[in-house]
Amino acid sequence: MSKKITPQSQNYSVWYTDVVREAGLADYGPVKGTMVIKPYGFMIWENIKDSLDRMIKETGHVNAYFPLFIPKSFFAKEAEHVEGFAKECAVVTHTKLMMNDENKIVVDPESKLEEEVIVRPTSETIVWSMYKKWIQSYRDLPVLINQWANIVRWEMRTRLFLRTSEFLWQEGHTAHATAQEAEEETLKILGVYKTLAEDFLALPVLTGLKSESEKFAGAEQTYCIEAMMKDKRALQAGTSHNLGQNFARAFDVRFQNKNNVEELVYATSWGVSTRVIGAVIMAHGDDNGLRLPPKIAPYQVVFVPITRNEEETVQIKEYVSPVLTELKSNEVRIFEDWSDNSPGFKFHDWEMKGAPIRLEVGPRDVKEGKAVLVRRDTNEKISTEKSQLVETIFTLLKEIQNNLFEQARTFRQENTHSVSIYDEFKNILKNKGGFLQCGWDGEKISEAKIKEDTKATIRCILTEEKAEGINCVYSGNPAKHIVIFAKAY
Amino acid sequence: MSKKITPQSQNYSVWYTDVVREAGLADYGPVKGTMVIKPYGFMIWENIKDSLDRMIKETGHVNAYFPLFIPKSFFAKEAEHVEGFAKECAVVTHTKLMMNDENKIVVDPESKLEEEVIVRPTSETIVWSMYKKWIQSYRDLPVLINQWANIVRWEMRTRLFLRTSEFLWQEGHTAHATAQEAEEETLKILGVYKTLAEDFLALPVLTGLKSESEKFAGAEQTYCIEAMMKDKRALQAGTSHNLGQNFARAFDVRFQNKNNVEELVYATSWGVSTRVIGAVIMAHGDDNGLRLPPKIAPYQVVFVPITRNEEETVQIKEYVSPVLTELKSNEVRIFEDWSDNSPGFKFHDWEMKGAPIRLEVGPRDVKEGKAVLVRRDTNEKISTEKSQLVETIFTLLKEIQNNLFEQARTFRQENTHSVSIYDEFKNILKNKGGFLQCGWDGEKISEAKIKEDTKATIRCILTEEKAEGINCVYSGNPAKHIVIFAKAY
Repeated sequence: MSKKITPQSQNYSVWYTDVVREAGLADYGPVKGTMVIKPYGFMIWENIKDSLDRMIKETGHVNAYFPLFIPKSFFAKEAEHVEGFAKECAVVTHTKLMMNDENKIVVDPESKLEEEVIVRPTSETIVWSMYKKWIQSYRDLPVLINQWANIVRWEMRTRLFLRTSEFLWQEGHTAHATAQEAEEETLKILGVYKTLAEDFLALPVLTGLKSESEKFAGAEQTYCIEAMMKDKRALQAGTSHNLGQNFARAFDVRFQNKNNVEELVYATSWGVSTRVIGAVIMAHGDDNGLRLPPKIAPYQVVFVPITRNEEETVQIKEYVSPVLTELKSNEVRIFEDWSDNSPGFKFHDWEMKGAPIRLEVGPRDVKEGKAVLVRRDTNEKISTEKSQLVETIFTLLKEIQNNLFEQARTFRQENTHSVSIYDEFKNILKNKGGFLQCGWDGEKISEAKIKEDTKATIRCILTEEKAEGINCVYSGNPAKHIVIFAKAY
Repeated sequence: MSKKITPQSQNYSVWYTDVVREAGLADYGPVKGTMVIKPYGFMIWENIKDSLDRMIKETGHVNAYFPLFIPKSFFAKEAEHVEGFAKECAVVTHTKLMMNDENKIVVDPESKLEEEVIVRPTSETIVWSMYKKWIQSYRDLPVLINQWANIVRWEMRTRLFLRTSEFLWQEGHTAHATAQEAEEETLKILGVYKTLAEDFLALPVLTGLKSESEKFAGAEQTYCIEAMMKDKRALQAGTSHNLGQNFARAFDVRFQNKNNVEELVYATSWGVSTRVIGAVIMAHGDDNGLRLPPKIAPYQVVFVPITRNEEETVQIKEYVSPVLTELKSNEVRIFEDWSDNSPGFKFHDWEMKGAPIRLEVGPRDVKEGKAVLVRRDTNEKISTEKSQLVETIFTLLKEIQNNLFEQARTFRQENTHSVSIYDEFKNILKNKGGFLQCGWDGEKISEAKIKEDTKATIRCILTEEKAEGINCVYSGNPAKHIVIFAKAY
């Protein structure tokens, strides 16, 4: 029986939940707001992780692992930081369970910790408490460390991949001798994130700076990559922070520079999380389910035999086997669906799961020396000579990767509006949605008023656009920056 | 300045701590019992993880991710399980911090959770709460899922890698339609673990069953791999549990079998943790530091140029570069130590870090078309023609891998004693230590008495050895099993 999902046009949010469930990506865990990443969803994460990990290493970073638990007192050391995370952290207070008189399992009151520990909502504080021990001289710099870890930020309104109490991510934490080096690092990583998004996830992204009110708690500057979803809302897919000397100051991390003078260390941090899976779902998915970019798809080609009896099955197996072997030896990820389900069920199932190419072979194909390829991105059916199959598949995988990117880019272009008049700004947001490019005077009050009126926030300051001669869309005063406003996830 | 560590013969335990610190493997975190795995230590873990992950996937398993947080009530569902973990678990009770009247950061009492959550000490309960939702019919079986995760078991007496409040591991959780399938899975994984230990970590291991008192809390049977450390104590390096229907019963996970009858699902679970890094350190290390098996060494070859001036440096670089390029293109992991430190310092440093091969090239080598290779396992210096370098390195890497294994195996053989008389048993344990192979009557009381007298525990029941005609070393009654007793980590 084939599964039905809610059309995007009917209810985008329900469509999203339907896809996550029907494609077998994730499930809610028993503790409120927690998420189980199911095998098919986790394969996507593994592919993303492998690509990003390779790029992080190629740019000179090494992996390490810092503890899950942070002493409560650490959060007192950086004022903005504690404010940013105090309202959403899991606090460990005890270390034992026991049976009470009624034979129920309760927390053992005697096991109360002297100082409570916090489950990391991010690791700047614990990392810098260690860097304090590891860094003495300019010879110890730079420190270029990344970690892959789970993170906890207690959430009440949860959404799988997008907003959960626990999620997976990588977080880089680097230490530098100069402000300039830290800024270069921040931008280098922004570039890596842009490459990940565009070349692997097929997500066109805008890059830029966050405004003061949207930046990371404890950063001097936060750079971000922002993508547009199919409902025209923005999704922040990665951030790279220049932390200046804030955490070095908080943890008193000083180094002897080349002139023998003591100085505070400069820092960056940066992260990409399982949230990007949500972005991939929402930027590419359609009413038939997921559409996965080949580079991160668990299976790039799904083979579905069209067979009515054992004899045909044997023929088809023999016919297709050398092709599949050749593809596999070229590292094409293939799933052969020999299950008992009907071909129709399988077509539907693998559309839902977003496999980029479906390969169909039936008895007539065997006779004629052919096969059928079906593109998930366009639904196009391509009848192919067996001798051309491998090459056609290589070509198609590239085309599908590019096409998904181009479709998303066109969609973003069509839904990005340059505006200079506030009424128009409000009208567009109300009636069409999308990205609004406009001047902003740099004032918190203008930003706050716009948010109050429209729920749109500054997604990023376009640092490469010049604001000269342009006025703030809200105040009418000369603009300091050209920015993108949008409603966001 | 070159670093000194305590000799093993003087104080093995201090030697261990010294090596971990001086080789840059790990450090204590700020919360008692937590561990920071530093980049060099983490590279070892990444290599171990890659090998094991590949084998886990090759045997048909897929990765997924289950939440960190488990509702307290889940621990009430399996009686043995809660007893096993109640005394060492981190309990989350609140979700917010706040400033109090004295401007101090405190836990917000209003954020108290209705039901406390436990940070996973292992994931059987949460996994089976999900399997309850996912498994209905024999068609849904087997479920063959693994996860890589962090685990928390609150520890007071801690030791880096060996015993910390948080550690990293993989945990497999499988569900099967029959008891036989579950037993086959348990043994298949035991085989994978043995391969990991012997072929990758160069650790000879005994495989067998745990006794009732040493088995996993909630298992029917626990199989294990046990290795001997250089102080002749045993270290459990991995366990594979046949859980029978215990967790299916606790979480009411039933399936419709092929005859349309409802049945409880059969389960296994199995894990290997960062503890194996401790095993590698203690099985192979010597008074100069680590000795790493090439297959898991972060750098298999460390190149140290012997140069007195810029001119020589240029010559050496040019001379050695094609060799290094060829090795790298053959996936040999290489570190080129061009730092300012003296050659003596570098030799010492890379001995401490256990790099299997050191490659030295000085101006005379350049003139003579030669180079020097130094084996970490034997300290042997090998003068080699440049033309032979690549091939010699390939051969040496294999030889070193084998030699570390053989040395450890010989050591274990020399320190394994077959005994039948209890006085002898006690004497050997007291004066020599090592593994004691003997008969055991299968009684808890004998096992407990031996532990009380000697601190030795049953490391494993040798299921392939026959106990016929042999008596229990303690009671003198007919033995049920041949077992290995030893003091253990």
